Amino acid sequence: MPGLPNTLKARRLGIDTHHEAVVFVRADSAVSRSEGFASRARVEVRHLDRRVVATLYHVTSEILAEGEAGLSDSAWRGLRLVDGAPVSLHHPVPAQSLAAVRGKAFGRNIDEDSARSIITDIVAGQYSDVHIASFVTACTARPLDFNEVVALTGAMIEAGGRLRWNLPIVIDKHCIGGLPGNRTTPIVVAIVVANGLCMPKTSSRAITSPAGTADTMEVLAPVNLDIATMRRVVEQEGGCIVWGGAVGLSPADDLLIRVERALDLDGEGQMVASILSKKIAAGATRVVVDIPVGATAKVRNDAAAHSLSSMLTEVANAFGIRCHSLIGDGTQPIGRGIGPALEARDVLQVLRCEAAAPEDLRQRALFIAGELLEVAGAAPSGSGVVLAQRTLDSGAAARKFDAICRAQGGMRPLPIAAHSHVVAATRAGAVRRFDNRKLALIAKLAGAPDAKAAGVDLHVHLGDSIAPGQPLYTIHAHTTGELTYASEFAARNGEVIAVDD
Amino acid sequence: MPGLPNTLKARRLGIDTHHEAVVFVRADSAVSRSEGFASRARVEVRHLDRRVVATLYHVTSEILAEGEAGLSDSAWRGLRLVDGAPVSLHHPVPAQSLAAVRGKAFGRNIDEDSARSIITDIVAGQYSDVHIASFVTACTARPLDFNEVVALTGAMIEAGGRLRWNLPIVIDKHCIGGLPGNRTTPIVVAIVVANGLCMPKTSSRAITSPAGTADTMEVLAPVNLDIATMRRVVEQEGGCIVWGGAVGLSPADDLLIRVERALDLDGEGQMVASILSKKIAAGATRVVVDIPVGATAKVRNDAAAHSLSSMLTEVANAFGIRCHSLIGDGTQPIGRGIGPALEARDVLQVLRCEAAAPEDLRQRALFIAGELLEVAGAAPSGSGVVLAQRTLDSGAAARKFDAICRAQGGMRPLPIAAHSHVVAATRAGAVRRFDNRKLALIAKLAGAPDAKAAGVDLHVHLGDSIAPGQPLYTIHAHTTGELTYASEFAARNGEVIAVDD
Repeated sequence: MPGLPNTLKARRLGIDTHHEAVVFVRADSAVSRSEGFASRARVEVRHLDRRVVATLYHVTSEILAEGEAGLSDSAWRGLRLVDGAPVSLHHPVPAQSLAAVRGKAFGRNIDEDSARSIITDIVAGQYSDVHIASFVTACTARPLDFNEVVALTGAMIEAGGRLRWNLPIVIDKHCIGGLPGNRTTPIVVAIVVANGLCMPKTSSRAITSPAGTADTMEVLAPVNLDIATMRRVVEQEGGCIVWGGAVGLSPADDLLIRVERALDLDGEGQMVASILSKKIAAGATRVVVDIPVGATAKVRNDAAAHSLSSMLTEVANAFGIRCHSLIGDGTQPIGRGIGPALEARDVLQVLRCEAAAPEDLRQRALFIAGELLEVAGAAPSGSGVVLAQRTLDSGAAARKFDAICRAQGGMRPLPIAAHSHVVAATRAGAVRRFDNRKLALIAKLAGAPDAKAAGVDLHVHLGDSIAPGQPLYTIHAHTTGELTYASEFAARNGEVIAVDD
Repeated sequence: MPGLPNTLKARRLGIDTHHEAVVFVRADSAVSRSEGFASRARVEVRHLDRRVVATLYHVTSEILAEGEAGLSDSAWRGLRLVDGAPVSLHHPVPAQSLAAVRGKAFGRNIDEDSARSIITDIVAGQYSDVHIASFVTACTARPLDFNEVVALTGAMIEAGGRLRWNLPIVIDKHCIGGLPGNRTTPIVVAIVVANGLCMPKTSSRAITSPAGTADTMEVLAPVNLDIATMRRVVEQEGGCIVWGGAVGLSPADDLLIRVERALDLDGEGQMVASILSKKIAAGATRVVVDIPVGATAKVRNDAAAHSLSSMLTEVANAFGIRCHSLIGDGTQPIGRGIGPALEARDVLQVLRCEAAAPEDLRQRALFIAGELLEVAGAAPSGSGVVLAQRTLDSGAAARKFDAICRAQGGMRPLPIAAHSHVVAATRAGAVRRFDNRKLALIAKLAGAPDAKAAGVDLHVHLGDSIAPGQPLYTIHAHTTGELTYASEFAARNGEVIAVDD
């Protein structure tokens, strides 16, 4: 109805609010007054037959003219707008599935229909982060039982694409808790796939760390593959290492994980649904989950690890697949590099069996690959590591990795940072402790993960004897500004690597 | 540290994000890259010794220049900035009390210290709405026990100002559920105070309705009184009707309620803490809580009402005060006007005992006032309504109301809308049903509550016999544009008042 005060002209404000849609209107606009929209209200924005639910903010300055609605990038994309296009604002119909979230908070179980409508509404952008936070908390405070986890896992799979490979065995792995050591993935995939197995691996980018597996892999080959290209690569080479965000498997998971991370809260049931929905959507039939246990890890004790492990196994069975857990200590960083290119260098050194390759990374990758080979039936029980080692030492894994990189769009040369700064020991002693949090922060201040070659390179291990002036680590950066910034932070913030007698 | 990339020049963007602080920075800025701030990250913004925790959004357009940080109005006020002032961005230290919220989600009770630190952090702006949503949901899913409600109530009282009156009896009332009928408050206060009792009443403004009690009262007198002025009014006249938002009693409550409303979720314990913290902070010693029960009311059945009532009584006792609940049916709208001035007119008609006064509003106000008089010991049991009626009919209540208005800053004449439109019955029959939701929406489309005289005036009651062409209701507006908008909505949206045989 043109001329009505709820119709405005769209303007792209160039504001990236991540997935949450935001619309800005003048506080003195007719639409705000007549519809009674308060600032931070949820409103439905319509253009033609498209609609998104957005958070409304009032603007009192001249960044918007009367009659304009400024939209965030996500709302702009969702409505497929052009500048000046008419948009109208309405009171949104609250998502029906919120009743099921409220019900869960009051103790009612989530059934299949509820799980499907909750996940569908989340993916459609009907939930604000406030609603997602309530859902996540309700599922932690009223722990999901087996049937609820199965319902949620199924709904999360259905909400996105799903790959099928027409093979009896498709293998996948997952590591819980984001410990350093993720960079085993490219090595493990290469070893397993070189043995004739199918492993269509999707990985994530860094959210709070200096590099995710997808960032590290992107140094060496394109990872932003769509689902059709991913399928072609896997059919040709048997495996891939791509960014999960581009292929749209279990799209609700990314939205849930972001809020879970803000709350530092993820119940066992949600963790199981999150892991298995991605793996099943990727077509896996046998999954190995690495569960490091430690005071600073996501899983704090053995009892919790065993409970998680058995729920993973049972829910996987409900979907006709097998899941095997590796429970063990995992508090030490693995490898030398922190940052996409430095980690990629570690990976290549291991794959190419170079003398300089970090031994801890090699051993960890062989251990996990050995488990996968056994779980997939490619090696008898107890002999997986031996097969993995043979595959690595013969050069077969390196050749397979090169072939996967070419299939994903071409192998790239390792970038090297233009500027570096060495941090040396100020006294003699032994290496007692790494502050992993500060090391990660220094790598980020130096520019990682966006500046691919930026980061921190470690020169010592726990327990090493150190002479005064001996290099402890090197900071790498693309610009002198970032190098100075990271170096000054390191100098000001106490011992990053503790050395004493 | 000047020159470091995390120092930017403050710019007021004129964006009202309500209480949540937001900072906008360019996506290509050095601070985003070096600190690794993703869009929607939580960041700490510092200026001199002041700091706020804000949500960061990336900007890719020219609304910000390189080196600038755009701030929302709430962040601007919190940091007391001037244009161009230096602000620096940092990774925030997560609020320690979030561990207690997580603990509650996992089943650990909230003790006094935890309650105090949670509420302190919420009032200090350390929690995003995502964290508040998690807290609210955890307290619903793991219901608060008596000790937890007492701890939470105490923490909410401590977080704001507190009034003390040096009187043995200070009376207050609260109505749960926002049913039409809130406009009894000015009448009830006038009757009770005319009998020599002390009743320092704070009320809320509309958030989603066409008028809150504070909006209605503001038509007749100023309500934005600070705590010192409120005290002076009450000491002089024995009572007041002011806006609670201006006096800062239990400031956490408003932040919690906004999220609870978005989630449509408030557990019994939180409702009790919310109600009692405001009343105790206002200095009340005897409180009457009106609990309407109905399918569309906040409290759905008698069992829930009785459970709520007994927790109110017990928690009130823990703070040395008395709380009495009125449980009853309350699904019918009361009075004729919907909108601040139209409701204020109803109130004045009842106070002045005019022949045109709506009888249902008069009866409801007398009933509640009678209960208060009995609870306060000003009338023997069973005779409160008689005393209330005598106070109203003698003109004593009207004189007291005028005196309170003068003390609050002067009685104002009732505004009258410039434009109106009568909606008439299209056929004969009886009035079967009011669509209260649509009536409220029409009043808001017409401009209420900001346009004080705008709204809807009802001309019929449930069960009335109606002739074709007989007026059902009148829409009032300040401008012809708003009148047209509201009238067209009414015409397009089916039966607002259902009439049939």
